[in-house]
Amino acid sequence: MNLAPFQVSLWVELLAAGLGGLQGALFAAEHRNRRIDVLGVLVIGLVVALGGSLLRDIVLDQPPVVIWMNWYLVVAGGSAILGMILQHLLAHVGWVITVLDAVVMGLFGAIGASKALSLGVGEVGALVVGVIGAIGGGLLRDVFLGLPVSFLQIGTLYAVAAGSGVGVLVFLTEFGTPVPIAGLICVGVTTVVRLIAVLLGWRFPEQRALTRPRPRSPKPS
Amino acid sequence: MNLAPFQVSLWVELLAAGLGGLQGALFAAEHRNRRIDVLGVLVIGLVVALGGSLLRDIVLDQPPVVIWMNWYLVVAGGSAILGMILQHLLAHVGWVITVLDAVVMGLFGAIGASKALSLGVGEVGALVVGVIGAIGGGLLRDVFLGLPVSFLQIGTLYAVAAGSGVGVLVFLTEFGTPVPIAGLICVGVTTVVRLIAVLLGWRFPEQRALTRPRPRSPKPS
Amino acid sequence: MNLAPFQVSLWVELLAAGLGGLQGALFAAEHRNRRIDVLGVLVIGLVVALGGSLLRDIVLDQPPVVIWMNWYLVVAGGSAILGMILQHLLAHVGWVITVLDAVVMGLFGAIGASKALSLGVGEVGALVVGVIGAIGGGLLRDVFLGLPVSFLQIGTLYAVAAGSGVGVLVFLTEFGTPVPIAGLICVGVTTVVRLIAVLLGWRFPEQRALTRPRPRSPKPS
Repeated sequence: MNLAPFQVSLWVELLAAGLGGLQGALFAAEHRNRRIDVLGVLVIGLVVALGGSLLRDIVLDQPPVVIWMNWYLVVAGGSAILGMILQHLLAHVGWVITVLDAVVMGLFGAIGASKALSLGVGEVGALVVGVIGAIGGGLLRDVFLGLPVSFLQIGTLYAVAAGSGVGVLVFLTEFGTPVPIAGLICVGVTTVVRLIAVLLGWRFPEQRALTRPRPRSPKPS
Repeated sequence: MNLAPFQVSLWVELLAAGLGGLQGALFAAEHRNRRIDVLGVLVIGLVVALGGSLLRDIVLDQPPVVIWMNWYLVVAGGSAILGMILQHLLAHVGWVITVLDAVVMGLFGAIGASKALSLGVGEVGALVVGVIGAIGGGLLRDVFLGLPVSFLQIGTLYAVAAGSGVGVLVFLTEFGTPVPIAGLICVGVTTVVRLIAVLLGWRFPEQRALTRPRPRSPKPS
Repeated sequence: MNLAPFQVSLWVELLAAGLGGLQGALFAAEHRNRRIDVLGVLVIGLVVALGGSLLRDIVLDQPPVVIWMNWYLVVAGGSAILGMILQHLLAHVGWVITVLDAVVMGLFGAIGASKALSLGVGEVGALVVGVIGAIGGGLLRDVFLGLPVSFLQIGTLYAVAAGSGVGVLVFLTEFGTPVPIAGLICVGVTTVVRLIAVLLGWRFPEQRALTRPRPRSPKPS
């Protein structure tokens, strides 16, 4: 199945990159015990903002757009620096960032999956590529910091939110839904699943629970 | 030197992917202290099963087959779920899994090295690509879990088994042996080296031992 | 902007690969507590020597030269083994290695950035690709060992030295400076910045310092 990728205006993608840069800087700021310097915060900001797009294009064997075109790196880097400077201010609008982050995750999922489908990738692969695009930035960030990849751990539901939205997109396009409509629905589903998960404290069952129930333990510090 | 890559029937490759998914799930199950949820086990299963092929194709600058074609992801994902459900049962047939795993490692080594040679990669590079194909799944798994890559550590001999088989393949094809025969010999050598290493508890000398012998210490927990 | 990449003689590149292999082996030798065996030291040597070039070519969507051509792997592997054998001797010429390492970092930065520009990558992307080429080996090494990536941490200034040189190269070529001249200046700037940083114990401010000064703490062990 070949179709056109989900296109968003460049300024929407750049807004998403900017938000990623902000978040990356804030995340790095909370990991002071790892002794990250100013340059490190900038790098983590770039990685969180652009890592998903980079991994998506590498896996799709395409020249990575975030490398080829100046704007992505400039905007993501600029907002990482802004995030560093404004971190105390931004701590007060955490919920705004959570909402925007959920929207951005949906956007990158839609862009990734539809780009994969447009290149002739199968439906299951397109689902995986969409999820990589959506959560790849966080993945690379954890690898760079020597942390276990956070979406593997209990209590995040990041990948589930991304996967739900992307799954709906792949399903809809399979039945002929135009990509722009399927893409918007993908963004909506991802955002709603993510926000409900945050609000209700949803978590996935631990793996052992399938065979033997055990008491809930508190979240790891 | 250009030649045709070592081809195995699709169902053999899928069987290998299925076995990788099983093993990944079992490995993740033993790392409960890292608080991996059900989705995490699925992801680790996919990574172990398909990571070697993915890295191989990225390093060869080719579109990754495991992304492009649905079957690999479906089979690997399905068997990861199966591995989760049946983990207590599978614990009793550990040696079957060890044997199959050795065969699979040989298969992926042969596929990787011959694909590299068929693209015009030099002999030494083909050896490296074969080893990446054979052990790349375990490599990615460790990176995702924030662990030191296990094949670097004493007592595994994984890379040695893979490298022996692939080395023989590269040598044989260099002297005109048809790829299907060299591939089967590669699988045989890898399997034998791996199983002997497991049976005899072979291990590589520690690095310092080259310059200064020291007493053996117990395996790290 | 399209231009020819910075070309150095193959033997210069191989010398650089050899130096990387030496350093990788020495680094691994200092991490004995991670229980790395002889093969592991060889792998770390290869990764440090060739990882930057590999990541550069993957990000540029090009077939990796270090895989395609035998010499890189042979030289890097050989010098890793040499580094293992001679580690006590090499410990006495640490400053020679530091100087050569700074030169090599500059070389790989120049090669990476000019290759990116020659493929039509934007100026900012070329800067990033140059830095990846210069410090990618250390990055991959840390990921393989399960360590936080060292250039993110206080007290290294590696990325700053690489970025300074590459930044000057991109700026100069933008204004029409021939690539060979810009490349040599890049090598010079990187070397000087790196060596001054080592001599004076320069370090980047910690990230929190932007908003709230705090007392200096000793380097992490």
